[in-house]
Amino acid sequence: MKMKSLITAAVALGATTAFAEPEREVSVTRASSQVATAGAPEHFTGSVKVQSRFQASSPARVGGGLVSFEAAARTAWHTHPLGQTLIVTEGSGLVQHWEGDIQEIGPSDVVWIPPGVKHWHGATSEDGMSHIAVAESLDGKTVEWMEHVTDEQYGQNSGGDGE
Amino acid sequence: MKMKSLITAAVALGATTAFAEPEREVSVTRASSQVATAGAPEHFTGSVKVQSRFQASSPARVGGGLVSFEAAARTAWHTHPLGQTLIVTEGSGLVQHWEGDIQEIGPSDVVWIPPGVKHWHGATSEDGMSHIAVAESLDGKTVEWMEHVTDEQYGQNSGGDGE
Repeated sequence: MKMKSLITAAVALGATTAFAEPEREVSVTRASSQVATAGAPEHFTGSVKVQSRFQASSPARVGGGLVSFEAAARTAWHTHPLGQTLIVTEGSGLVQHWEGDIQEIGPSDVVWIPPGVKHWHGATSEDGMSHIAVAESLDGKTVEWMEHVTDEQYGQNSGGDGE
Repeated sequence: MKMKSLITAAVALGATTAFAEPEREVSVTRASSQVATAGAPEHFTGSVKVQSRFQASSPARVGGGLVSFEAAARTAWHTHPLGQTLIVTEGSGLVQHWEGDIQEIGPSDVVWIPPGVKHWHGATSEDGMSHIAVAESLDGKTVEWMEHVTDEQYGQNSGGDGE
């Protein structure tokens, strides 16, 4: 009986946590209160800045932010378990999936990277590029980082003379 | 036996559909190929344009686009089953949840609207406003539309003299 009481108490406690008060109000995170963070050197090459980060509350699972790459800056190779959408806001950029051609992207272009597809994105060698990035998490993970994009890989088509 | 064969065939067919070839390539939807659509009069007041629409493929469920409101234009009251994130890209806008104060929003502000919270968003009476809108679908639905925001409701704080 004592054990049963303990279990009942634990379940009750769990229920309280699980059924937390729902959010009832719109919240605004001001631009002035946001801290821009630098892209970590282990996952990026060159100067990369992330602003306007967002993360929806559970049961929603989407998050992202505005990522700005200086000229020649780019992500490492990586995958997303549920894919990622990029909406280019300014500048001139590049995106490539493993064994695919490098594609140039510009303002208002929308990029869809399917789940599990190894790829990178970044700026051209001549211009910076900014995009909004949007991805859903699976089991708490939104990205699997891999090796850097070498200068040789990047240089294949970074002079703006390709497709 | 005949019935069993039919069921077996149906299950096999279902399996083929369910395990369709996974997407293996990054896809780019060019700005030049995108068609801007007008916000439907039953869900918006004033002139509203939607561009750069995106919809992730299942099992992802996020979608959205760039929504541009001319001065004084706004959504009707509505809710989102899994909430919505807005990232303001330019101009000067307003957002309000039911029985809350109207809040002004500007470039790079990030707005979180929790699931089920009745609200509206739009431009101020003096300036247009554009935002990226990001929302996940639940059972195929991303929005529940309600009544229009009246001029009286909108006028409570549309002159830029409020909070």
